[in-house]
Amino acid sequence: MEFSVKQIADLIGGKLEGDGTRIVDNLGKIEEGKERTISFLSNPKYEHFIYTSNAAAIIVKNDFQAKKVIIPALIKVEDPYSAFTRLLEEYHTIISYAKTGVEEPSYLGENSKTGEGVYRGAFSYIGKNVTIGKHVKIYPHVHIGDNVEIGDESIIFQGVKIYADCKIGSKCNIQAGAVIGSDGFGFAPQADGSYKTIPQLGNVILEDNVSIGANTTIDCATLGSTIIRKGAKLDNLVQIAHNVEIGENTVIASQAGVSGSTKIGKNCVIAGQVGIVGHIEIADHTTISAKTGISKTVRKSHTILSGYVGFEHKKFLRANTIFKNLPELSQKVDKLEEKILNLPTDKNK
Amino acid sequence: MEFSVKQIADLIGGKLEGDGTRIVDNLGKIEEGKERTISFLSNPKYEHFIYTSNAAAIIVKNDFQAKKVIIPALIKVEDPYSAFTRLLEEYHTIISYAKTGVEEPSYLGENSKTGEGVYRGAFSYIGKNVTIGKHVKIYPHVHIGDNVEIGDESIIFQGVKIYADCKIGSKCNIQAGAVIGSDGFGFAPQADGSYKTIPQLGNVILEDNVSIGANTTIDCATLGSTIIRKGAKLDNLVQIAHNVEIGENTVIASQAGVSGSTKIGKNCVIAGQVGIVGHIEIADHTTISAKTGISKTVRKSHTILSGYVGFEHKKFLRANTIFKNLPELSQKVDKLEEKILNLPTDKNK
Amino acid sequence: MEFSVKQIADLIGGKLEGDGTRIVDNLGKIEEGKERTISFLSNPKYEHFIYTSNAAAIIVKNDFQAKKVIIPALIKVEDPYSAFTRLLEEYHTIISYAKTGVEEPSYLGENSKTGEGVYRGAFSYIGKNVTIGKHVKIYPHVHIGDNVEIGDESIIFQGVKIYADCKIGSKCNIQAGAVIGSDGFGFAPQADGSYKTIPQLGNVILEDNVSIGANTTIDCATLGSTIIRKGAKLDNLVQIAHNVEIGENTVIASQAGVSGSTKIGKNCVIAGQVGIVGHIEIADHTTISAKTGISKTVRKSHTILSGYVGFEHKKFLRANTIFKNLPELSQKVDKLEEKILNLPTDKNK
Repeated sequence: MEFSVKQIADLIGGKLEGDGTRIVDNLGKIEEGKERTISFLSNPKYEHFIYTSNAAAIIVKNDFQAKKVIIPALIKVEDPYSAFTRLLEEYHTIISYAKTGVEEPSYLGENSKTGEGVYRGAFSYIGKNVTIGKHVKIYPHVHIGDNVEIGDESIIFQGVKIYADCKIGSKCNIQAGAVIGSDGFGFAPQADGSYKTIPQLGNVILEDNVSIGANTTIDCATLGSTIIRKGAKLDNLVQIAHNVEIGENTVIASQAGVSGSTKIGKNCVIAGQVGIVGHIEIADHTTISAKTGISKTVRKSHTILSGYVGFEHKKFLRANTIFKNLPELSQKVDKLEEKILNLPTDKNK
Repeated sequence: MEFSVKQIADLIGGKLEGDGTRIVDNLGKIEEGKERTISFLSNPKYEHFIYTSNAAAIIVKNDFQAKKVIIPALIKVEDPYSAFTRLLEEYHTIISYAKTGVEEPSYLGENSKTGEGVYRGAFSYIGKNVTIGKHVKIYPHVHIGDNVEIGDESIIFQGVKIYADCKIGSKCNIQAGAVIGSDGFGFAPQADGSYKTIPQLGNVILEDNVSIGANTTIDCATLGSTIIRKGAKLDNLVQIAHNVEIGENTVIASQAGVSGSTKIGKNCVIAGQVGIVGHIEIADHTTISAKTGISKTVRKSHTILSGYVGFEHKKFLRANTIFKNLPELSQKVDKLEEKILNLPTDKNK
Repeated sequence: MEFSVKQIADLIGGKLEGDGTRIVDNLGKIEEGKERTISFLSNPKYEHFIYTSNAAAIIVKNDFQAKKVIIPALIKVEDPYSAFTRLLEEYHTIISYAKTGVEEPSYLGENSKTGEGVYRGAFSYIGKNVTIGKHVKIYPHVHIGDNVEIGDESIIFQGVKIYADCKIGSKCNIQAGAVIGSDGFGFAPQADGSYKTIPQLGNVILEDNVSIGANTTIDCATLGSTIIRKGAKLDNLVQIAHNVEIGENTVIASQAGVSGSTKIGKNCVIAGQVGIVGHIEIADHTTISAKTGISKTVRKSHTILSGYVGFEHKKFLRANTIFKNLPELSQKVDKLEEKILNLPTDKNK
């Protein structure tokens, strides 16, 4: 993707100073100063980088005046950071929509249909009776099982595996290697110590605007659906067990895990490596610190929890401070004990 | 897969009341009440759902009498839950066996042979000298390395990667994205601070009836075999390092990890996010709570362990209760100290 | 791969005793004693295995004399362990170089070029403008995005996914299912509680001699690069977030996670299931114990850290010892309190 500096200045409504014919093919940080890139200068602390930069152009504030000779062209705007962010988003949209058409060999099962503007990468596999909306991007090595539905403008990256019967909403984004709809971990113990598999016949539903990270796994429900509500964001290597429900706009960071049948409310923030047991509920707007273990239902919204066995965050911080100094506390107790033992015995007895 | 209500009533030996010609194509929960599904009513607490359900049929107890007009047909049996479970299993078996034949393009290396009733999905890759038993299902994007053996009736889901020389037993089930036989993490430190790779030449053996979860990774042995004994069940995103042995019927939940050369006994239950160090042994029937860290051999069977540095579960619970109240304990000690300092000095001295 | 015992004796410069025409096709442990394998005997404790072994040959010390009749041929050398290790490495190199040529169908995009001796497995996908060095091995189901560069002699195992614009050095080794360059987890909270995606336009750079484990995920930078410096070794299921930098020769064990923009020094050792927060720095030669949570910058090199909220290792060990005995400490305090309350009141008042 190539643009001239002039084109970019026009796009963001900035005033161009310098060579507008130069070519830009990437966005970068001002401290990198690479050729053919565009950066921005917002914080005066970074101004010195502009004088050694080889970038094609730099977006600066309207009142910026270079104190030395510089190589980059300048694009002057009121708010360089906002202008640059807008550029990022435009660029990202262009890239997202760049892939289109069908690469061969690819596999499309009976009675499956795809909307206009769809990309199907080489070696992608779409089973039977699948319905795929408009402008959906199916990257190479994606597997889409029978009867799956995918809404408009969703992007399914390379090697994602979606099991039969799952439903993916519109504008979802599933990163490489994620698995949607694997069998739930359900086994019935037998008298001889072995386990019998409990059939897992449900599916997974991702509502609209859901993001799923790389190599994350979401199990199907035993019956019914494992549900990720609209706007929820899951990071890489997250585990969601069977029959879980994740509320609207809830964010779950990497390597966290949620056990079977637990229901998490909306607008929660769950940090990395958190573990949540099965069959509980987490209230809306709950925040859970990294590595916390949650073993009980959280009823009150806006609670903040921390700890190996999670409890109220501020209480945890106080307890943890004393934990670090347990040797001192223990010594203090030993000294007190010694003093008491050495106290004069009661002479009146 | 479609059945008439009459066919299902005959299959489970129930007495049909209502329209037996209706079509059933799924099993569901009674509270969902979807058309073309069959549910069951066992707990009287859920009876009210039957009066608003659009299901094709509901399995009920022999003595059930509807108190209002209902839409679903009824199938009366002695034990609705058992009848439904049987139905689940039958349905699951039918689905599991539904895929058969070879989809193209798929890759079969020299001297490799597959038994009768095998499914090989499009874009599946089978290397050289591979032996695959009867009714094995190889889903799309599966990679099977050279010299691998797979026993009868195993199901290898989409995108599973099995390295060369591994052995997979009969009736194994490997969920999407799992990696079997990756190189063990072995590096010899050099004088200059760099590391030299220790070649990993062993393999992985899964015995019969082993289940492996989605995106789980099992490293090959340096020499010899990493072994998962028969009936063991591993959940999603589990890590098994090189030369580990997992005993018969041991269950390992999601995101747990076992380090190199550790040997875990049979019928153990290892919960989610547990970490076990290398080169130790865990006795049979050990239970390890979620998030526990295990750093020492467990000799006594039937032990239950918990804690960040794991120890006996009941002791952990008591210690953890006091941990939460450490600020109070610390204050109490401070008050005692104050009192003792304020005690009258020994007047006899 | 087959060799005669004589060929191996010549290769390692040992003295052959016994049948040199026998065929060896694998290396094994002495206690396994399998036919057609070669083992070594270094520790006299294992000598008894030699008398029941069916191996083709065993490497022994120059002064070894069998006390009974044995089946294997002997290869006598000064240091059997070193000789065996050399054999392991030779064997590994041969296996690593065995795959070559192009299997079909495979996909090579416009303007992409590969060096001599490259292997491209069936169903591998290489996008546009990709540059691949000499003797690189691209296994089946690998996805390499547009504009990627891969240095000489790197091995990319089955199902690895590399996003567009990433750079992989020479002699790198990426195990199956790893994802390199997935979108960073960046979302800007909106007034209505929803999140807007922050475009992730950077890439990932792996320098030379980097090893990446199975199903590990490394996010691209928002802008600029997520960097894994030369000689770093990452195990399976590790998570590296956007804009992280991992120093030279740093080792990270399985299921550890590093959050966004954190910079880890060189020659660090980070154990399994460690979690490190974002936007901090870890000094060179830092050691972090398994399951430790790191929430603050570590300035001093050669620090060892442990604990749920990580602090100095030896202090942690002392605190943890007392943690286990908190019930006893608490009881002791209660007894002291009782004694003090029962002290004679000050009679002089």
